[in-house]
Amino acid sequence: MNRNILLLPGDGIGPEIVSEAEKVLRLLNDSLSLGLTIDHALVGGSAIDEHGVPLPDVTLDKAKASDAILLGAVGGPKWDDLDMAIRPEKGLLGLRSNLELFGNLRPAILYPQLADASTLKPEVVSGLDILIVRELTGGIYFGQPRGVRVLENGDREGYNTYVYNETEIKRIGRVAFEAAQKRGGKLCSVDKANVLEVTVLWREIMDELAKEYPGVELSHMYVDNAAMQLVRAPKQFDVVVTGNMFGDILSDAAAMLTGSIGMLPSASLDERGKGMYEPCHGSAPDIAGQGIANPLATILSVAMMLRYSLAENKAADLIEQAVSDVLDQGFRTADIYSEGTTKVSTVDMGDAVISAL
Amino acid sequence: MNRNILLLPGDGIGPEIVSEAEKVLRLLNDSLSLGLTIDHALVGGSAIDEHGVPLPDVTLDKAKASDAILLGAVGGPKWDDLDMAIRPEKGLLGLRSNLELFGNLRPAILYPQLADASTLKPEVVSGLDILIVRELTGGIYFGQPRGVRVLENGDREGYNTYVYNETEIKRIGRVAFEAAQKRGGKLCSVDKANVLEVTVLWREIMDELAKEYPGVELSHMYVDNAAMQLVRAPKQFDVVVTGNMFGDILSDAAAMLTGSIGMLPSASLDERGKGMYEPCHGSAPDIAGQGIANPLATILSVAMMLRYSLAENKAADLIEQAVSDVLDQGFRTADIYSEGTTKVSTVDMGDAVISAL
Ligand SMILES: CC(C)[C@H](C(=O)O)[C@@H](O)C(=O)O
Ligand SMILES: CC(C)[C@H](C(=O)O)[C@@H](O)C(=O)O
Repeated sequence: MNRNILLLPGDGIGPEIVSEAEKVLRLLNDSLSLGLTIDHALVGGSAIDEHGVPLPDVTLDKAKASDAILLGAVGGPKWDDLDMAIRPEKGLLGLRSNLELFGNLRPAILYPQLADASTLKPEVVSGLDILIVRELTGGIYFGQPRGVRVLENGDREGYNTYVYNETEIKRIGRVAFEAAQKRGGKLCSVDKANVLEVTVLWREIMDELAKEYPGVELSHMYVDNAAMQLVRAPKQFDVVVTGNMFGDILSDAAAMLTGSIGMLPSASLDERGKGMYEPCHGSAPDIAGQGIANPLATILSVAMMLRYSLAENKAADLIEQAVSDVLDQGFRTADIYSEGTTKVSTVDMGDAVISAL
Repeated sequence: MNRNILLLPGDGIGPEIVSEAEKVLRLLNDSLSLGLTIDHALVGGSAIDEHGVPLPDVTLDKAKASDAILLGAVGGPKWDDLDMAIRPEKGLLGLRSNLELFGNLRPAILYPQLADASTLKPEVVSGLDILIVRELTGGIYFGQPRGVRVLENGDREGYNTYVYNETEIKRIGRVAFEAAQKRGGKLCSVDKANVLEVTVLWREIMDELAKEYPGVELSHMYVDNAAMQLVRAPKQFDVVVTGNMFGDILSDAAAMLTGSIGMLPSASLDERGKGMYEPCHGSAPDIAGQGIANPLATILSVAMMLRYSLAENKAADLIEQAVSDVLDQGFRTADIYSEGTTKVSTVDMGDAVISAL
């Protein structure tokens, strides 16, 4: 069985970390005969520089033809003054929406070896293992109408539309209920149903779905309270499901609870399980090109890819075990370094994972 | 000079905590001859029970005629199944919007006496003193159109509108720049300008305003990053300004960093400095009527009222000093209790403040 994998290194530290992940992927492809064909393309700022647009047709065509995609990160100050329509982020948003990658899975896991890295007290976060399920192709990110207009009195006015229909809510709801079923059986749906009508509908649909998943205990929480509870007692959560904008905010807060966002992978899936995989962190332009970025989130994204899109659980397990091994061996990139451990470069960390494999 | 103060106890623990704050206010009114006339009215669930609506005309009329308002909290499970249009929250939102209380000041301060209460490590939060300035009468909370409609295919669709015009942005911007001028001189404006057009306008206006406040250093941050930075390194912030929805989320997260949300007051001001003052915490229906709620946030809200709306700085200072004194004396309500301190009831805590005064 031949499968096509597309690598999109992107901007900033993207190329450095994707290249380490590629080493890992190629090793497993050869040793386990996975039958993967690996290709590359440009997206984001690097695509703007080369083609004038953040998502060139050739990239989108390759993405559509692939079975899974690995993305580094996009964006950087170089492109910050561009009009929003042609900024690097539009490349990412364009991929999500064109490929209908509506189901975004963002785990926030505290690695026992890195417990000290958290800014929270150990007893509050030890053993933390949350999964945030974020809707990724709808909501206010894509709602119409949107723009800036001039009012009769000459004032400018900016506007966006927060919109969800029941089909969109149901399909992300199912992803979340199924994830909760496989995990701890608890699902918390986050909304602002005391103020926003769109989330009143969200809550109703989640309640309807709950009847189909009797093994899952559904609760509801307002988004302001959820932001508080993540700081107060994050271990109360198992799976959290929410819309695009709230998910953007809460998943970043949840990731930061672990103190090691350089360790966290993510998956964005379509209806059939095809997916784009990327680290939770950004393109970190300030440290790009220095060879110090942490490649582990990207390497763990490869593990997610193998598990969710390629049904290669064994290969995925091997990667996760290897990452745990290199942490046990004391190897740390600068972002997770602490006294008594061995500080290594991006490439060294990639090599350490290869050795562990 | 006679001034009218309206007390709105509201629901849940609201009546208990407002009654302690009233004791403090009356004491200072008498001893310092402040010339305050104190009246009461119903809002939220208690108004629904009595009048069928969360914001009766008599309450709104009294609110309009007053120089400052002290609110306890609104809402509770008893009214959760009501239609959104007549829920307790609508009373609060109606007051904010009818009185044009657009400028919401939410301090997040860590009291040295309560440093242990935070879930964050002491070095991350010690000395924390952030002011979140939240726009309170616009944005997606009030944007039109809004609702739930049925699409041609029979699907329901929910929608809300996130909208700001430049006048609204400018006036909240000025509140924030002026606050930053009086404090540490640093203002961080939070938006999602890489995705939402309405916040592109927001960012532009903040940049324009910055020219008028050369003493203030303005920075911009995306809301997802802000949620992360609040967890990672909250002391980097001095004043934060943002819209209604992002402000709701971030101010709750920031408050929780202190671990003692029962200590945090807030102010909501109109163009002329008239204001409504309330604790940052909610109506806590689970502990209502037990006499264990913490009245200090409400008592500190009285201090804010005296300072911002009544120009009685001396009286405000006295209250803040008295609160600090009772903490030094070791008095704690259940929410901030720790070993070695003295656990007291709501009324005892109010009495302790009175004695300290
Ligand atoms: C880069 C940006 C458009 C993106 C988002 O807001 O979705 C990022 O923050 C993310 O969470 O993947
Ligand atoms: C009760 C609710 C409508 C309110 C809000 O969302 O503004 C509350 O959360 C607050 O922050 O004051």
